[in-house]
Amino acid sequence: MIFTVQVKVMPLKELLDPQGKAVMGGLQNLGLKSVSDVRIGKNISLQVEADSPDKAKQIAEDASKKLLANPVMEYFEISVN
Amino acid sequence: MIFTVQVKVMPLKELLDPQGKAVMGGLQNLGLKSVSDVRIGKNISLQVEADSPDKAKQIAEDASKKLLANPVMEYFEISVN
Repeated sequence: MIFTVQVKVMPLKELLDPQGKAVMGGLQNLGLKSVSDVRIGKNISLQVEADSPDKAKQIAEDASKKLLANPVMEYFEISVN
Repeated sequence: MIFTVQVKVMPLKELLDPQGKAVMGGLQNLGLKSVSDVRIGKNISLQVEADSPDKAKQIAEDASKKLLANPVMEYFEISVN
């Protein structure tokens, strides 16, 4: 069976996110003053062939650790649809 | 009240995603053969000051249309936590 797995990779909360800061500046300039913080990460959608959702999640976790996320700067969250 | 709003910006399904294709090649080389497709987009986390979750969602939608997503190449989904 094929599962769609979403991996959310975000910059660690302790770190500055200059890309997010730049976008926040842009939003303020556009008049959207009610946005007080912006952080930008990646969303990776994987099609995974596996026997069960748990297996699919395990494969996605393996992929995240090996390639998708850099643990020095990022954390990841996995959800299986 | 401050709401955390997640905006998921992904490349349109009709378009090629070369970044995703490259990552899929990388995963195959690492031995993760059960991953059959990869698409990569952005995940943007906003802190929005608003009276209600609906208002917060509306602000995020406004921000997405004005700045966060490029409708020619991307679609977006909004969720309020």
